Amino acid sequence: MRAGVFDSGVGGLTVVKSLRSHRLFSEIIYFGDTARVPYGVKDKNTIIRYSLEALEFFKNFEIDIMIAACNSVSAYAIEELRHNAPFKVSGVIEPGVLALKNRAPSKESSILILGTRATIASGKYEKLLRAYGFENITALAPSLFVPIVEEGLFEGAVLDTAMQHYFAEIEPPDFIILGCTHFPLIAEAIGRYFPEAILIHSGDAIVEFLEREHRLTNRFANTQLKLFASENPEHLKKTAALWLDDPTIAAAL
Amino acid sequence: MRAGVFDSGVGGLTVVKSLRSHRLFSEIIYFGDTARVPYGVKDKNTIIRYSLEALEFFKNFEIDIMIAACNSVSAYAIEELRHNAPFKVSGVIEPGVLALKNRAPSKESSILILGTRATIASGKYEKLLRAYGFENITALAPSLFVPIVEEGLFEGAVLDTAMQHYFAEIEPPDFIILGCTHFPLIAEAIGRYFPEAILIHSGDAIVEFLEREHRLTNRFANTQLKLFASENPEHLKKTAALWLDDPTIAAAL
Repeated sequence: MRAGVFDSGVGGLTVVKSLRSHRLFSEIIYFGDTARVPYGVKDKNTIIRYSLEALEFFKNFEIDIMIAACNSVSAYAIEELRHNAPFKVSGVIEPGVLALKNRAPSKESSILILGTRATIASGKYEKLLRAYGFENITALAPSLFVPIVEEGLFEGAVLDTAMQHYFAEIEPPDFIILGCTHFPLIAEAIGRYFPEAILIHSGDAIVEFLEREHRLTNRFANTQLKLFASENPEHLKKTAALWLDDPTIAAAL
Repeated sequence: MRAGVFDSGVGGLTVVKSLRSHRLFSEIIYFGDTARVPYGVKDKNTIIRYSLEALEFFKNFEIDIMIAACNSVSAYAIEELRHNAPFKVSGVIEPGVLALKNRAPSKESSILILGTRATIASGKYEKLLRAYGFENITALAPSLFVPIVEEGLFEGAVLDTAMQHYFAEIEPPDFIILGCTHFPLIAEAIGRYFPEAILIHSGDAIVEFLEREHRLTNRFANTQLKLFASENPEHLKKTAALWLDDPTIAAAL
């Protein structure tokens, strides 16, 4: 079983980490469009165009499923990808909403969606949550979180001040959807700010989704990881060695 | 006299503001590559490729000079642009260094260069400053400043905390080169942090440079401004109406 994981940059490695630790695939082909990151500030047509170009890349490999780890791609380009792909395609929005639904005891639960400007503007999370009967929903685009993560400031004064800036008016929610691949890296800090909230992580959600909806139940002894980037592949590999805590990637550098 | 002003996004409008207020041109054609912003995190070859594409765009107009307002373009692509352009080409790095030289009473002056990762990594400011005999130079890439400006946080706790983060170890300098088009928008805050420093602004520097080196001494009653963007031109126009404080741009929206 082989997966292609597509992301706008290095952030999708948080999804790869979950997929690998659950050993769902014998091989993962990762493509990060690092030359054109970030997608979260781009408009719909641009995101679709870039996603279809990524699809062409994945056609070079014998993959069974293409996973769009990027929430902005999941919000705007899944239909177009499905329409053109010779393999299965999954985004992370539906899996995230299902993971929340499976954990929420009540439709009254309050939900905070955090995402990029593009993801929030799409209204996709909100629409799907409402379809499942949830109504107590707040959507927020804390645009500085991505650059703060990319600067490696996973905790400290800069992140704390940014959280105060964005969260000052927000009532503590029951659930927080981490609707951007970068946010799991600051999940601990967000969890400290809202200690009562349950955090929904795209990586865990997609694993759950693949097991339940796609019946992926085989476990592989090892997941081969092949990393590709449209620019600066060395930076992607270094980030992978760090985030995935994988000495074989580090050794290959 | 007509100028083409090229920037990776909306930031170059700070340069347009200076050019307009000095009425050096009868017309300014602005092109912001907003679909691919930011350039400051991209590598040299990508920046050159994008710049040459922008050059093709400007060939559609009868311009006399193309001004690369973007410091990352100025750092990496000026030679390639000059080699291929049928008009004059100027960046902002040489003008910035000359503006500093004209203000610095002593070669002992301490200089802090602020720029994007790409601009700082190029070493272009530093090299040119050393060629003029300056040696007391510190170069810094405060990567969060651009997203903070794009979030409209020109002052306040988030910017103050970010400044503390980047400037904690920095000795107060005599001069600060604002080596990114976004930084003039937070010049006041930077000036409060380093109250003794003289700030060098690309917009003012390029005006001085055009007057001195290119002998542009004509003054035009009015500067026609035409705005183009590779994505979301409405956002560029709204930003222009705000930053240039121009009711005619706002009225045309």
